[in-house]
Amino acid sequence: MALMAKWIAGVDIGGTTLSVGMVPAAGGRPRALRTGDTPEGRGGEEVVARVCGMIRAAVDELARAEGPDAAVAGVGVAAPGSLDRARGIVLESHNLGWFGLPLRDRVEAATDLPAVVENDANCAAYGEWWQGAGRGFRSVLGITLGTGVGGGVVMDGRPFAGATGTAGEIGHMTVEFGGRRCTCGGRGCLEAYASGPGIARTAVEGLAGGTRSTLPNLVAGDLGRITAATVHEAAVGGDAYATGVLARAARMLAAGITSAVNLLAPDAVVVMGGVAAAGDLFFGPLAAELGRPRFRSALDACTVVPGALPGTAGVVGAAGVFRLRTGPARG
Amino acid sequence: MALMAKWIAGVDIGGTTLSVGMVPAAGGRPRALRTGDTPEGRGGEEVVARVCGMIRAAVDELARAEGPDAAVAGVGVAAPGSLDRARGIVLESHNLGWFGLPLRDRVEAATDLPAVVENDANCAAYGEWWQGAGRGFRSVLGITLGTGVGGGVVMDGRPFAGATGTAGEIGHMTVEFGGRRCTCGGRGCLEAYASGPGIARTAVEGLAGGTRSTLPNLVAGDLGRITAATVHEAAVGGDAYATGVLARAARMLAAGITSAVNLLAPDAVVVMGGVAAAGDLFFGPLAAELGRPRFRSALDACTVVPGALPGTAGVVGAAGVFRLRTGPARG
Repeated sequence: MALMAKWIAGVDIGGTTLSVGMVPAAGGRPRALRTGDTPEGRGGEEVVARVCGMIRAAVDELARAEGPDAAVAGVGVAAPGSLDRARGIVLESHNLGWFGLPLRDRVEAATDLPAVVENDANCAAYGEWWQGAGRGFRSVLGITLGTGVGGGVVMDGRPFAGATGTAGEIGHMTVEFGGRRCTCGGRGCLEAYASGPGIARTAVEGLAGGTRSTLPNLVAGDLGRITAATVHEAAVGGDAYATGVLARAARMLAAGITSAVNLLAPDAVVVMGGVAAAGDLFFGPLAAELGRPRFRSALDACTVVPGALPGTAGVVGAAGVFRLRTGPARG
Repeated sequence: MALMAKWIAGVDIGGTTLSVGMVPAAGGRPRALRTGDTPEGRGGEEVVARVCGMIRAAVDELARAEGPDAAVAGVGVAAPGSLDRARGIVLESHNLGWFGLPLRDRVEAATDLPAVVENDANCAAYGEWWQGAGRGFRSVLGITLGTGVGGGVVMDGRPFAGATGTAGEIGHMTVEFGGRRCTCGGRGCLEAYASGPGIARTAVEGLAGGTRSTLPNLVAGDLGRITAATVHEAAVGGDAYATGVLARAARMLAAGITSAVNLLAPDAVVVMGGVAAAGDLFFGPLAAELGRPRFRSALDACTVVPGALPGTAGVVGAAGVFRLRTGPARG
């Protein structure tokens, strides 16, 4: 008889997308990976129902591929917002409209599996530390560039929440005093410049000045349709203006990384998410800005790298956090 | 026979001032406190000789007051720069010109007492956590406003150095992208605005524009002699311009505190040092800026207070770190 394989279901609940995959407890790529739209639903019931359906389908798919001995140890859930980790409750998620949702208990009841809940940005950082670009480092700051700028911290192999539970919020660090208004109500937050919408805003504001660029053609003249993806597309096509817009976002991110690294002194920063996919168009100016003269002790001791698990860092990390909290599963 | 009291010598080595005091191992105010100028000396030998003389004098003074049973457990030394903590070596201190100074061994040899060495900003933060304004909090970010802007972190009752040993450098966080040149070579660092020299610079730059203020009279027309203390003096005297200069520094500090609190999520921030002595003229605008609309989760869960150990936080904290590393001394 073969040794029984142990698997963990990893779940990443995002504002627009749900992702579920079966992750080997010993580490490795997720199997039976599936994604779905996040439904709008009162109190999170529709979201939880859909997620649990996806978990059951993934478990079934795994069993068909691996045989009935493909034992599943439990479920790790990456959720946005502030959490009561010990009780697995989402205290406050404005994106999803959840306030006091007992997510862990709901998932456990619907799947008959033990579950743990952790912040989504911390899960992404943990996933990269456990199985991705952060392997072998003591401490990782993970930054996810998307609709917002999320941050998570892994310290000595554990997600770091700080004394008050919300550590790692690099998106709302001030990088330009009195600068651009952020969705949080503040001014000059990193998120206002380096998120997808921030990049689009930089592009549109510059175009209003009459700059030459292919961007207007790409959106049939409707500048409101410009997104970070449009800017990337134009830059890849050789548009100097769009290339400069990406470089500006990268330089603002460099300022945020500088601040964060001076404070936390991690040995690695992993940059994840959509904007990060722009490759050298983004990481070139980022590296150049980080290399400029400035206080260097912490920066020189730290490695800044792109994520290695595009689209799955949260799923892998949520499974890893389950393993961490419940002890390594045994075969 | 009376119970034997246990004491620890606390030493704070600054760029201009040396401070030594005898701290009760159970906590309390330093006794036999003394300060002296920091001598310039090759390889740190003159500094170490003077510090060790001060330690012996403090031990003698304590013995005269408390009797020969006033047992001294050892010496805690707060030193600037980057350290090898395990071996007690100052790797690199540009202020003092020390590179690879085996400070612990030198102090042990000259005093015949065991010694430990910790970063000065971490000692100040630890002192406030152990015996000052940070008592009872889980995690404290200590900020010292002086010639520079220093930062130290205490996490779960221990100094926090990060993975690479230099955590807490809030002074070189970027608060204004592309802003004022800092002594580190970077731009827009918090230290360029909220340090003593930064405040003086803000004052002088504004005066050059012909603003009405009593400041020129206070320095007999020599604007180069304006310091943060002059600005404070003018503000206390009702000078609206000087009051605004202090408020501007406080607002920049608020931006740095916001960034640091979002990242670290401490439950307390303790603001120490000369500028902090400006009281409401400084803490009023600081609190107002921190209270403005912005991402609030971490800020609302955190208390920002002035330090309670002016001039002695480093001495107390260095003694506390000795106690922490060697185990509580027993009577």
